[in-house]
Amino acid sequence: MRTLAIHALEGMPGIRPGTDLADEILGAAARNGLRLADGDIVVIAQKIVSKAEGRSVRLEAIVPGAAAQALAHTTGKDPRLAELVLGESAAVLRARRNVVVVEHRLGHVMANAGVDRSNLDAAPDDEAVVLLLPEDPDRSAAALRDRLRAATGVRLGVVISDSFGRAWRLGTVGVALGLAGPPAVIDRRGEADLYGRPLQVTEIGFADAVAAAAVLVMGEGAEGCPVAVVRGQSWSESRQTARDGLRPRSEDMFR
Amino acid sequence: MRTLAIHALEGMPGIRPGTDLADEILGAAARNGLRLADGDIVVIAQKIVSKAEGRSVRLEAIVPGAAAQALAHTTGKDPRLAELVLGESAAVLRARRNVVVVEHRLGHVMANAGVDRSNLDAAPDDEAVVLLLPEDPDRSAAALRDRLRAATGVRLGVVISDSFGRAWRLGTVGVALGLAGPPAVIDRRGEADLYGRPLQVTEIGFADAVAAAAVLVMGEGAEGCPVAVVRGQSWSESRQTARDGLRPRSEDMFR
Repeated sequence: MRTLAIHALEGMPGIRPGTDLADEILGAAARNGLRLADGDIVVIAQKIVSKAEGRSVRLEAIVPGAAAQALAHTTGKDPRLAELVLGESAAVLRARRNVVVVEHRLGHVMANAGVDRSNLDAAPDDEAVVLLLPEDPDRSAAALRDRLRAATGVRLGVVISDSFGRAWRLGTVGVALGLAGPPAVIDRRGEADLYGRPLQVTEIGFADAVAAAAVLVMGEGAEGCPVAVVRGQSWSESRQTARDGLRPRSEDMFR
Repeated sequence: MRTLAIHALEGMPGIRPGTDLADEILGAAARNGLRLADGDIVVIAQKIVSKAEGRSVRLEAIVPGAAAQALAHTTGKDPRLAELVLGESAAVLRARRNVVVVEHRLGHVMANAGVDRSNLDAAPDDEAVVLLLPEDPDRSAAALRDRLRAATGVRLGVVISDSFGRAWRLGTVGVALGLAGPPAVIDRRGEADLYGRPLQVTEIGFADAVAAAAVLVMGEGAEGCPVAVVRGQSWSESRQTARDGLRPRSEDMFR
């Protein structure tokens, strides 16, 4: 029997700009009675990485331009929020009432360019602070991986997760926004199945599946845990980043 | 610490038309030393459900019509395979060299309408047998759930999984093709985050995330395990089916 275990760490403290996430993760693991082991993949919610990196923006400082005013009109969103969405985006793919789907400057096709109002460390009535994605989640993942490896002496992977909607299916699932260690995609082209035929499933979205599994356990909202440890999944060291898991624009049939 | 465990059952026997899957799953669980427990979700690969339901088709019996000939010309696929794809589809969304994306008659937007050549119990040189999706995977899931509950006396869920590509991301991840017990989607609209703001992530693709997690552990190809048991994830009994996890066509912005 092959067993994968996913441990969501409880009791992570509030994260502020400049918080040392590696220290907090190691502290939370210890308080949860978990010792990081060889092959573990540490999954970290994008939100706390953004918070630690000071990626919050006060809406009152934003002056929306003409394009943002137009997007706000189409979508019904705050024009200053629309300005931030456009600033984070390489292209707007779809804009409708309450919906905007963009290609983020990082390459991810996603809603609202990841500009998120919820769960910030502010008073409930202060709706004027939003959080952007990390500047470079792959770099953030690599830095965290290096810190965690140095502290523990074991081979670890790091995935920075986000929750994305899908084109044809309801509800969000976790995806890999940043990655260091495991591969984004496992290419099995050329391998055979049990009966010698070429495998039909030839590329596996490994990092996204790890994120989906972890986010399921981490949960959302008030009772959510922003860090999980995925244990028992074998993986080979890779130089791929989360960007390597994105379909090239030239192969996109649904833009 | 919240822990989710996913156990992939080893040593499932070869499945033939008429095989009693519930018996085989209970037998494999016992041989793996696993006793099904309250709240477990049993994830079963579509392929073995299709095999047990006799959904294999010999290509030599298929006579392609004009539409199939045209699709075969566009995609480079075998015209008889194209005929089967069309027969399983409500609409063709995209057709290119080596690629066809359809709305399956069950509603899923997917490649090749799930018509699959690999891993059939046939000699390697017999490429003329293909496997279709189960007639009604939600009904199959409900029947298996009822059998497994009756045999064990505990509250179980069943997910029939498949591996789907995504529009903008590389590699496949598991999704729920059939569902009985847990919800397809958890609607959190109206709930608040830690600080009293409305949650931004308001719908969670629960069954798909369970499938993604399980398929990661189950693996593909020669060393794959077609059944996994997901343990430790709390869920409320739901009457939703996998179809309830599909975005209505009227809300599809990417068709």
